Amino acid sequence: MPKVVDSAQRRAELTEVTASEIARVGLDGITLRDIARAGGWTTGIVNHYFTDKRDLLLATFRSRADAARQAVERRLAEGATPLEAIIESALPLDEEGTLNWRVWLAFWGAAVGDDELTDAQQARHHTFHASISAALRAEQAAGRLLADLDAEHEARRLVAVLDGIAVQAVFDPEHWPPATQRRIVGEHLATLTTPEGS
Amino acid sequence: MPKVVDSAQRRAELTEVTASEIARVGLDGITLRDIARAGGWTTGIVNHYFTDKRDLLLATFRSRADAARQAVERRLAEGATPLEAIIESALPLDEEGTLNWRVWLAFWGAAVGDDELTDAQQARHHTFHASISAALRAEQAAGRLLADLDAEHEARRLVAVLDGIAVQAVFDPEHWPPATQRRIVGEHLATLTTPEGS
Repeated sequence: MPKVVDSAQRRAELTEVTASEIARVGLDGITLRDIARAGGWTTGIVNHYFTDKRDLLLATFRSRADAARQAVERRLAEGATPLEAIIESALPLDEEGTLNWRVWLAFWGAAVGDDELTDAQQARHHTFHASISAALRAEQAAGRLLADLDAEHEARRLVAVLDGIAVQAVFDPEHWPPATQRRIVGEHLATLTTPEGS
Repeated sequence: MPKVVDSAQRRAELTEVTASEIARVGLDGITLRDIARAGGWTTGIVNHYFTDKRDLLLATFRSRADAARQAVERRLAEGATPLEAIIESALPLDEEGTLNWRVWLAFWGAAVGDDELTDAQQARHHTFHASISAALRAEQAAGRLLADLDAEHEARRLVAVLDGIAVQAVFDPEHWPPATQRRIVGEHLATLTTPEGS
């Protein structure tokens, strides 16, 4: 009986291999043939699922965003607060976070001068901003963050802090180990904390 | 009498044109032929100065870092404090800052999986960190920032905040106009300010 491969499953495998290849050799050096070889497929299979390298890149970008969302869910299930879960999943603190960030940086580079990729990047940031706003409002409701903060605006600030930390950490991991990344987020949040909560 | 073109001047013109082309169409779409055409040169002239596209990219990255440093000098001459001059020159607040940032983002993308470009990026960030540390110490000496702050560490935080803001602003200028960028830096600095200085 021939092995039936689910289409969504195959696409997920392809973007998984592509993410690893981007993280390893960068976007410029990658070909569809390399992706096929790395995954043990024919180039024809890759071409069946994606029209070109750019299409595969876009799918890989989205799949890493999905992976980051799943990491948030996993941490929530383990008892983290929404804010903790988002922060821990948004930084390059472990292998998965570093992989996500290497893909995102490669994608940002490709998005310069490319309207469609810029739109995808904007959409991801708007979703990220919305989930951080909600998490900050939950912290306010729990009395851990100052009630009079504008959660929308504070989410904007926190997105910038997280992205800025992540960029440093990816390119200079020696000076930005996980402890430093967490410390700097903590210092930022401490300025938003109620006296009782601190 | 034939026109004598100074070699450093020609290199500067080439990197200037390359920066504009990267900002406009991104790194992926650029060829040495396009650069030559955009500047009114032969491809042979471009090849005379740069061995390949990657070499030209590295030179363009460095020339934008020089441009940012010159912008700092200009603002100092106009009476800005070192900290003000650095912040205003480090964000995409005007056409030049936006050009710098589009080149840097394209460069970051290319630096993923590339040791030499990653080293260049690290070197730029270390220089940037050192100049921010010095500016923060000057603010402390002037009594405008808390004296017991660790300037090295605060420089790290500020680099992250500036980079994070810049990334948002380049990809989503509508939600990150100059006033929002400046407001967020100001809110960050306010948490480091002496009560008398605020």
